[in-house]
Amino acid sequence: MQFATVTTEGGGRSAAVLDGSDWRALPAPDLSALLATTALRDAAGLAGEVLAGAEPTLPLPAPGKVICCGLNYADHIAETGRELPRHPTLFPKYADTLVGPADDLELREGLQVDWEVELAVVVGATLREADRDAALAAIAGYSVANDISVRDWQYRTIAWFQGKAWDRSTPVGPVVVTPDELDPFAGVEVICRVNGEEVQRASTKTLVFDAADLLAYISTFTTLRPGDLVLTGTPGGVGIARDPQRFLEDGDVVETEIPGIGVLRNTVRLAPARHTPVHP
Amino acid sequence: MQFATVTTEGGGRSAAVLDGSDWRALPAPDLSALLATTALRDAAGLAGEVLAGAEPTLPLPAPGKVICCGLNYADHIAETGRELPRHPTLFPKYADTLVGPADDLELREGLQVDWEVELAVVVGATLREADRDAALAAIAGYSVANDISVRDWQYRTIAWFQGKAWDRSTPVGPVVVTPDELDPFAGVEVICRVNGEEVQRASTKTLVFDAADLLAYISTFTTLRPGDLVLTGTPGGVGIARDPQRFLEDGDVVETEIPGIGVLRNTVRLAPARHTPVHP
Repeated sequence: MQFATVTTEGGGRSAAVLDGSDWRALPAPDLSALLATTALRDAAGLAGEVLAGAEPTLPLPAPGKVICCGLNYADHIAETGRELPRHPTLFPKYADTLVGPADDLELREGLQVDWEVELAVVVGATLREADRDAALAAIAGYSVANDISVRDWQYRTIAWFQGKAWDRSTPVGPVVVTPDELDPFAGVEVICRVNGEEVQRASTKTLVFDAADLLAYISTFTTLRPGDLVLTGTPGGVGIARDPQRFLEDGDVVETEIPGIGVLRNTVRLAPARHTPVHP
Repeated sequence: MQFATVTTEGGGRSAAVLDGSDWRALPAPDLSALLATTALRDAAGLAGEVLAGAEPTLPLPAPGKVICCGLNYADHIAETGRELPRHPTLFPKYADTLVGPADDLELREGLQVDWEVELAVVVGATLREADRDAALAAIAGYSVANDISVRDWQYRTIAWFQGKAWDRSTPVGPVVVTPDELDPFAGVEVICRVNGEEVQRASTKTLVFDAADLLAYISTFTTLRPGDLVLTGTPGGVGIARDPQRFLEDGDVVETEIPGIGVLRNTVRLAPARHTPVHP
């Protein structure tokens, strides 16, 4: 099954489930609100009228937690010059960080803006100190994300967070596909293109820590809840690891794809900074 | 002025303002809800009845963002063997991470649990790309926090986050004091005691990045909103930097104090882990 938060002809917004080629309304304004009360496996039975002119937008506009894993594909780890990790490297984003599948990426001139295609895992149940089986059972579905990274800020200090949590920088969507329809454990491809040129392609089969590992590990220290997102890391091919390095420029179009889920197509918009930051 | 979220004799909870030695009710269940609609400087005028048996609890139970600065006192930077930073090192916590001024710190056996007294800044206005003056004007008040850190998890990877965001580990409170009554820029003392023995004492005068610097810097990449918290870093004296190293044990009492704000008094409770984590 495929779920989305869609905009409709009348300018409204609704959680929705795909029925053939139609999006049918679900009784919530978006998937964040739906997941707070209803498991996706039960939601399809609530489907209402067909929504005219439905267009998928950011599926989860209000996750309580967005936790990302870095250094999780062997080839990307190699291009950063590191060894295979014993533990996942984790950092967070905010709901503010996210934008929809066709939204502009709104950043500032002069930043080193880089791409990172990732499989996003949607949490479907409350998890704390979960074992792997419980974590696996708590996966509501999968989506596509691009963990757009501001490299100069990421590496200003040892904490990546300030390069990873720029408002309106990380596209997610276009839909959430349930585990019965997509099996990243067996392997799905994650692909990124910049202005039509393929820059990343890998299979989730080569993840060091898979989706269930990550949910269980995170739940050791903090509670995950329905609608939370876990981003599973990016493979090789990022701009900062190229020779010469390549960063995104104003007007660049970033396409982020996982076959079976869909494509994000976002344009980079680099506006002038409002003023010189306190510590430039 | 002093504000708090208090529990009352009847088992209720209310935002409150101190009037002499009485807590008077404000029209919100807690300071998070109050700050979403009302600036603290305007809230005192809304004060209602005196609350019998009022006891301050976690003042801000629902901050959208809790952002912490590491490596911000010169002596603590020296004890970690680092040089003075050009940029603040930032990492986040969650609302889930916080507990009140008298709550137990609920962690697991076998973790390296350490203390970090910190001045907490309460954001009072929405800030994005703010300059220093705007950031200064947006400070609603100050509170006390202890950035309890799980050192073994903090240093498992290069990202500190997983050692800093354990649920119910970081006490905050007991009250929020407005800037007209407390001036950390001129210097207030931050003090930590373990079982009555003083382990940290310093003045906020020696902060590398002060409260206004931090709010302005953070607002360069993400929006801060009323009720968000910024923790300003800890001075020297933490357990991991001692010789021999010292970590908190079950039953230890941690007192975290800033004169003019108050004292947090929390008991460490280390329960057995429910199961062996996926990646021990």
